[in-house]
Amino acid sequence: MATCNANPVSLSCNITNVATPSSPLYSKTYRDASVIHLPYNISISENTLAVIAGPCSIESEEQIMATAEFVKKSGAAILRGGAFKPRTSPYSFQGMGIAGLQLLRKAGDYYRMPIITEVLDSEDITIVADYADILQVGARNCQNFSLLRKLGKIRKPVLLKRGMMVTIKEFLMAAEYILAEGNENVILCERGIRTFETETRNTLDISAVPVLKQKTHLPVIVDPSHAAGNWKLIHPLALAALAAGADGLMIECHIKPESALCDGEQSLRPDKFALLMNDIHKMNTLLNKKLECI
Amino acid sequence: MATCNANPVSLSCNITNVATPSSPLYSKTYRDASVIHLPYNISISENTLAVIAGPCSIESEEQIMATAEFVKKSGAAILRGGAFKPRTSPYSFQGMGIAGLQLLRKAGDYYRMPIITEVLDSEDITIVADYADILQVGARNCQNFSLLRKLGKIRKPVLLKRGMMVTIKEFLMAAEYILAEGNENVILCERGIRTFETETRNTLDISAVPVLKQKTHLPVIVDPSHAAGNWKLIHPLALAALAAGADGLMIECHIKPESALCDGEQSLRPDKFALLMNDIHKMNTLLNKKLECI
Amino acid sequence: MATCNANPVSLSCNITNVATPSSPLYSKTYRDASVIHLPYNISISENTLAVIAGPCSIESEEQIMATAEFVKKSGAAILRGGAFKPRTSPYSFQGMGIAGLQLLRKAGDYYRMPIITEVLDSEDITIVADYADILQVGARNCQNFSLLRKLGKIRKPVLLKRGMMVTIKEFLMAAEYILAEGNENVILCERGIRTFETETRNTLDISAVPVLKQKTHLPVIVDPSHAAGNWKLIHPLALAALAAGADGLMIECHIKPESALCDGEQSLRPDKFALLMNDIHKMNTLLNKKLECI
Amino acid sequence: MATCNANPVSLSCNITNVATPSSPLYSKTYRDASVIHLPYNISISENTLAVIAGPCSIESEEQIMATAEFVKKSGAAILRGGAFKPRTSPYSFQGMGIAGLQLLRKAGDYYRMPIITEVLDSEDITIVADYADILQVGARNCQNFSLLRKLGKIRKPVLLKRGMMVTIKEFLMAAEYILAEGNENVILCERGIRTFETETRNTLDISAVPVLKQKTHLPVIVDPSHAAGNWKLIHPLALAALAAGADGLMIECHIKPESALCDGEQSLRPDKFALLMNDIHKMNTLLNKKLECI
Repeated sequence: MATCNANPVSLSCNITNVATPSSPLYSKTYRDASVIHLPYNISISENTLAVIAGPCSIESEEQIMATAEFVKKSGAAILRGGAFKPRTSPYSFQGMGIAGLQLLRKAGDYYRMPIITEVLDSEDITIVADYADILQVGARNCQNFSLLRKLGKIRKPVLLKRGMMVTIKEFLMAAEYILAEGNENVILCERGIRTFETETRNTLDISAVPVLKQKTHLPVIVDPSHAAGNWKLIHPLALAALAAGADGLMIECHIKPESALCDGEQSLRPDKFALLMNDIHKMNTLLNKKLECI
Repeated sequence: MATCNANPVSLSCNITNVATPSSPLYSKTYRDASVIHLPYNISISENTLAVIAGPCSIESEEQIMATAEFVKKSGAAILRGGAFKPRTSPYSFQGMGIAGLQLLRKAGDYYRMPIITEVLDSEDITIVADYADILQVGARNCQNFSLLRKLGKIRKPVLLKRGMMVTIKEFLMAAEYILAEGNENVILCERGIRTFETETRNTLDISAVPVLKQKTHLPVIVDPSHAAGNWKLIHPLALAALAAGADGLMIECHIKPESALCDGEQSLRPDKFALLMNDIHKMNTLLNKKLECI
Repeated sequence: MATCNANPVSLSCNITNVATPSSPLYSKTYRDASVIHLPYNISISENTLAVIAGPCSIESEEQIMATAEFVKKSGAAILRGGAFKPRTSPYSFQGMGIAGLQLLRKAGDYYRMPIITEVLDSEDITIVADYADILQVGARNCQNFSLLRKLGKIRKPVLLKRGMMVTIKEFLMAAEYILAEGNENVILCERGIRTFETETRNTLDISAVPVLKQKTHLPVIVDPSHAAGNWKLIHPLALAALAAGADGLMIECHIKPESALCDGEQSLRPDKFALLMNDIHKMNTLLNKKLECI
Repeated sequence: MATCNANPVSLSCNITNVATPSSPLYSKTYRDASVIHLPYNISISENTLAVIAGPCSIESEEQIMATAEFVKKSGAAILRGGAFKPRTSPYSFQGMGIAGLQLLRKAGDYYRMPIITEVLDSEDITIVADYADILQVGARNCQNFSLLRKLGKIRKPVLLKRGMMVTIKEFLMAAEYILAEGNENVILCERGIRTFETETRNTLDISAVPVLKQKTHLPVIVDPSHAAGNWKLIHPLALAALAAGADGLMIECHIKPESALCDGEQSLRPDKFALLMNDIHKMNTLLNKKLECI
């Protein structure tokens, strides 16, 4: 791909060319469907259903090991956990950092689950990629183009969360920043947009699921936890996401939500997560998808 | 209920009392679940699933009879059709008026389906109630409190659509205007809210379904047609609504969408509607609901 | 202008004609600028600046007379006061009704000020028009097309407030409903739109002022009180509205905001209102407008 | 409640302290008003009015020198120009990079104006700080906490643009990330939020100006160009911003907008900019502010 670093008169940067090329890399004209291959023979694709589960933040070895155990037992395929946390306030808990990455890796290895964690800064890509199987870009960094470009230069899968005020078109163009640099392993994640409604933390844009599935070959998953901000809504929203065509789910769970360092109110307890996985199994049969787990 | 027509010092209007009473009529503390009984033994409730289908506007006898035939055949329980249409422009087709009501009634009688149609003005309530089994309040009239109050004085069921920028709390208080006047037969309908996203006509607030179901005993249905504004999204959104807990659906259908006088682009053809009803049947089995039809 | 009452096959309602005509009555192509003439030689136009002031609700004779006195003394031209109040909850104070209209008329006559008050229902148009010099349509009725149409059949000026969810294009089409029925005396009022921001009750869309002034000959005024929902913001927002090109302001005032039956927190006290009028005078000199007062 | 025992073990992360501390560094309780001192004796503060002007992107030496000449002549104090551009599409012109920084510095030196330009990535802070007098954080990076933290470790002024989706509270907490690291030179910039309205590119939240001025000692400026996305609206919005209490303006200008590589439609020509500055002079007299220029 031509770049436009310092030359405003190069053809590819010409103002008449300012929109997308006629056939962006994310589009269905380029490819019909993508399959993201992960360790332990797990994949994320339109023929499978992968459930990612785990705590908002990694807090201790005991916590992440216990969580991995119960989410694995209920049927989750991939383990999540935040080590670097983007928080509205500089005085809130910012995550365990590298120590957290190490604990997450240990839990993933022990329970044989691929792991996913967020990368906040382009300077941290190398260290996070050393530990994680999927690198997550958070909603607030959805249009951090410099970070996206650098994630395009690695080959590990990237899960890109939609920004709270990013349109579907802009979301796809953000993914294009990663694809354009050569990394084809991009997973899109709808996690709610910002609206006037205050009963939920964000408004899950369920329509984005079929819209995205019609426009792109990239897998689309849904995070009902951040959308709702309330554990009581996660079960119905997770089922709705699958019915709308999502290829996977990302669910926040905690062994003891009331003492979580972050987002406890939107985390499912072990028993509630098991009930949800049970209904996901049933729904999946109806949708003719293969539930990923080992 | 005490009213506050002209006396600012009456106790019930006192400013210290300005919020809702501790136990509004819509709340679960007042009743666990409501059942709306309709002709032909159809009901709308949490144990049943009722599909309302029909054209945006009634255009001719041929059109409404043909539509009623195919939606009934595929399993719809209730027939919809607009006779008085609220249109953004005064120069757009405004509906057939009373002639439309008569045609809708004829179709409902012939195919043995309860009928629903919109009432735009408090002056029209009597005439619309003479024909319709359910009176619909459109999104733009969701906070037309004068209309709501007068609908509270009749006994026919009222389907209240959520306004495009009405919060869930305000939506429930709008329903309270009807309930407070004595009409207990209120059905709530989520039909999309206005957001920055332009890929869809509105953003279906799927979370509103479980939030409403947790707060009120009133039945909650979903209109994916107006939310999406695009027939290609109706099928996945309809299934998502059921998975999220909706008690019914309202779907726009047309025998020939490309020649519809209104909203053709969001109307399903007979074959697509049949496919959708087929998947609704399957989903319903999973959800342990009884699909209403005769 | 052809109407489309009940006949879908009339030419003017044909689907090919569904958008606006090429030259709607609100547009600059139809007229350059409108002047709304009111009693006491007050006018609302692009060459004048009219300040409308008064309480949210008329509460008593003492309150409305005292308010009229101080707003007149500080330079307001038109007296406002609500007699029929649209409230989110049916249990909130709903206004004094006809008794309120009579008190407002008395205050207007005594202090020689035109009066404006809201009409909530098409059935009330006649009675409200008997008392008021300007009929106000509230934000929640901005797209109550039936009400608008009937206000098009009277000849008294109508102040149309923009709905919280109404785009500028839709706002102009709502005005067109009134104009199309023959009433040319329409005043547009920007009063804030609904967004995700919660520091203010609504978000004053200041850009709507120049956008509207470029698109229509109708006068445009601004209501900073309802936009902000906080009296501390009214002074800067009022000045901003004038700088942006507004033809007038509507300001909520109260002799004793802490005991107001409605919206006390967004009402200015007499001393604050006097300070604001003082700055409005200065700003007006800069803008070469004539401040309306008698 | 547990502390942040595994994070960089600072006391300030204690979870009981998870909201803002009782007295955040941005607040009025900490300081009454901040003055940002810049080269050439220019300052940004509540007693002065500083106009920042220049092109969206630096395109060539000829362009930036000609622009600096005309904005200086009309009374602008600070020169802006983008060298690293955050663009929705990876295929759009991304800026001239370091060559652009050098040209901007040359123009600033020649015309004796402080310069401001955007930094996109924490890795570029050093190089941008070598050239620029003010480092700008764009709207899409408003909550790029890693970037903010690193900008807190330098001492050059930082202009933080409000994100399209960022509440006023979150905006202040984003500024707190910079302040908390020791950099006291933060300027806040309102540039429009995302709403449903499509007549303007964004919705200028004019109320944010007085709200911010009441909550913080940091200077607040307004960028009407990005808010409106249309040069015809810049003049009224710029005046409105001053009337609302803004301490400065950032205006996009171009010698030939129709051939601009970026955002031409929202850039003012030299003659329009001169007219605007003329009105700003008049408004400033009214507001008792000192217009910064040399």
